[in-house]
Amino acid sequence: MIILGIDPGTALVGYAIISTKKPKGQKQDRNEKPKVLDFGCITTSKSSLMGRRLEIIYDQVCLLIKKHQPDVVSIENLFFFKNLKTVMPVSQARGVILLAAAKSNVPVLEFTPLQMKMTIVGYGKAEKKQVQEMTKQLLDLSGFDLKEKDRKKDDAFDALGIALCAFLKPT
Amino acid sequence: MIILGIDPGTALVGYAIISTKKPKGQKQDRNEKPKVLDFGCITTSKSSLMGRRLEIIYDQVCLLIKKHQPDVVSIENLFFFKNLKTVMPVSQARGVILLAAAKSNVPVLEFTPLQMKMTIVGYGKAEKKQVQEMTKQLLDLSGFDLKEKDRKKDDAFDALGIALCAFLKPT
Repeated sequence: MIILGIDPGTALVGYAIISTKKPKGQKQDRNEKPKVLDFGCITTSKSSLMGRRLEIIYDQVCLLIKKHQPDVVSIENLFFFKNLKTVMPVSQARGVILLAAAKSNVPVLEFTPLQMKMTIVGYGKAEKKQVQEMTKQLLDLSGFDLKEKDRKKDDAFDALGIALCAFLKPT
Repeated sequence: MIILGIDPGTALVGYAIISTKKPKGQKQDRNEKPKVLDFGCITTSKSSLMGRRLEIIYDQVCLLIKKHQPDVVSIENLFFFKNLKTVMPVSQARGVILLAAAKSNVPVLEFTPLQMKMTIVGYGKAEKKQVQEMTKQLLDLSGFDLKEKDRKKDDAFDALGIALCAFLKPT
């Protein structure tokens, strides 16, 4: 089973593709770590018009879906906002990402930051760093340079975490 | 010049196409009313998945653009929210509408509800009904049955108002 995890945003959209050995529907042993196939960030320039930035995000997500043929897209759900100003652009980006998944008939799972912390660390008040550390331990990241420009960003790790949630979620 | 006005939403997306006689760039006499070519609502079912609803909105807006070849898309901008719960779905819909415009290389103008009231009624605290009445007076709606199902809705009239803003805006 292939999972595409997405952390939505406008300037930075984190993405991660993980692969579990077992075929779709069959539960993998939790001790077998899912293999990371790719992860990083889609970036758009603040100087571009919003429509153009959304087009880049949509096209890139469509390309990722075409290349990796995921069985599911796992995406962060914005449940609560500290900053109202970010709600609108992040939701607009979510809109084109959900559209990309629908256009390819890939089902979508959504996780709030709280669900992500509970699923990965088992503690709803876990720090971002703790979630990242646990995510690294639970995934097979062999072959990846974690200090590479596009992969050291929080958004890329968040996307790994969101992909991992779709693997770990109780069925 | 052809203007496509859009009032974004998830269950109901108002749309309106108006035509001004003067070619692009040339200012029409304010006494010459822009002609309404079409207006109504795109509807999506609450029982459908969000991705599918966004796909319907995107496809329908693409169809409207293809059919009417607008010079500009005018869309309501969500500046202030009474209800935080509606911000996310409406912004997601805005995302796919902005994408549809970008994919067709049509420039976008955005107006807040306040700007709309100021532009159409000249008074920022105008009631919705006043905006609707003034909109009807400023547009050539001949040939339209205003009581038709898809056209009697507030969203369809809001879209007429937003299209009108793009025509009236000071340049």
